[in-house]
Amino acid sequence: MVGLMASKVRLYVDHPLGEGQSVPLSRDQAHYLFGVMRMADGTVLSLINGRDGEWDAEVIEAGKKGGILMCRVQTRPLLMPPDLWLLFAPIRKERTAFIVEKAVEMGAARIIPLQTEYTNNADRIRQDKLQAHAVEAAEQCGGTFVPPVDALQKLDRVLADWPAGRQLMFCDEAMIGDPVGLPDIAGPWAIVIGPEGGFSTKERDRLRALAFAHPVSLGPRILRADTAAVAALTVWQQALGDWG
Amino acid sequence: MVGLMASKVRLYVDHPLGEGQSVPLSRDQAHYLFGVMRMADGTVLSLINGRDGEWDAEVIEAGKKGGILMCRVQTRPLLMPPDLWLLFAPIRKERTAFIVEKAVEMGAARIIPLQTEYTNNADRIRQDKLQAHAVEAAEQCGGTFVPPVDALQKLDRVLADWPAGRQLMFCDEAMIGDPVGLPDIAGPWAIVIGPEGGFSTKERDRLRALAFAHPVSLGPRILRADTAAVAALTVWQQALGDWG
Repeated sequence: MVGLMASKVRLYVDHPLGEGQSVPLSRDQAHYLFGVMRMADGTVLSLINGRDGEWDAEVIEAGKKGGILMCRVQTRPLLMPPDLWLLFAPIRKERTAFIVEKAVEMGAARIIPLQTEYTNNADRIRQDKLQAHAVEAAEQCGGTFVPPVDALQKLDRVLADWPAGRQLMFCDEAMIGDPVGLPDIAGPWAIVIGPEGGFSTKERDRLRALAFAHPVSLGPRILRADTAAVAALTVWQQALGDWG
Repeated sequence: MVGLMASKVRLYVDHPLGEGQSVPLSRDQAHYLFGVMRMADGTVLSLINGRDGEWDAEVIEAGKKGGILMCRVQTRPLLMPPDLWLLFAPIRKERTAFIVEKAVEMGAARIIPLQTEYTNNADRIRQDKLQAHAVEAAEQCGGTFVPPVDALQKLDRVLADWPAGRQLMFCDEAMIGDPVGLPDIAGPWAIVIGPEGGFSTKERDRLRALAFAHPVSLGPRILRADTAAVAALTVWQQALGDWG
């Protein structure tokens, strides 16, 4: 990855972090740190919990079934992403995991897998696995925030319950080759990425009729859903997000 | 993928395409079309060769060891990418293949794997396999152009032989959190993406001292090399390429 030497172990824990805070380890975490990574008393690693930034923590107690870490100093403050949701129609397994990983790296605040008319394999989507991918992406890429991953939701239902004041950028294949065309509107946003085969005509007509939905072009080439996700996040972050 | 129904087989052939042009098939191609895909005389598929756009072609002769296709009508003109090279330091295998695939989708004209100080596994880079990935990406994503993939080259050598008039965008982790900062200079460009661990201090100093090299920021988060490649291609295509 760019800019991160993989020199120090980075671990997500569901526990408050702060100066002098002790952090008990689960059996799995103890196995990973002491069994797999061979850490001993005194070893320093990085902890994140998605809320308190990144902390250096020292191994105080190393056991086979558990252990204790002690937080020393904060090494990175919490970096919250902008209020941007990524909605996407799951594709085949490894590319779905990939989209979740990229959404974390690129700074999405919430990830929503969508069932659309052309979504395949929707029954195979496991929220817990996708959430674990989001945690892993944050651990590996220096992230301090972990976006929640929702359970699979139907596009119709999501649009019917759409929150007032949130804009929606949708990548419309009918606009292929047009200028990008993202409107300059501040406030909360979402990006929606269609499935293989795109949106159905009915879905596209519905999206196009919604005042909060803004069709956007991602250039003259056909993009896979995972490529479109990174490209759309880049366009949005640069124009309206925290890349400025 | 966005906007492409995977309804018709799309095949790359190294043969001229044009109205009434017959295209002989290799043994492997015949096996794929007639053995695996079960095509017979009269079936229509799409052909590309990277030069003549996309053509509908009909099966004229189907054999076990070969066959003949006949071009009927052009279904898509050749879409050349802008004069943009993507230079990248290979990472682990599947992510290297991924970068090649994304470079094709996003519209790079040439792909150059780079050996840098922190490049791992450089001896495992096989030009022929990466070129095959580029062909496959064009076949699957509606592309009509296939960028050449160079053999692995040393960063020092590439910079020493740099062609006059070509600008270089390099994603500098020292600028993390700064505005993107891509200068508005027309003409040929290249993007360089560093390896895991980034460029060495020596390499970064050298890049920063070159008049044609322009450091650019890709936001406040650490990005993996494959994410950085798509994000950088998006930034460039939108500002200086053919996304306008």
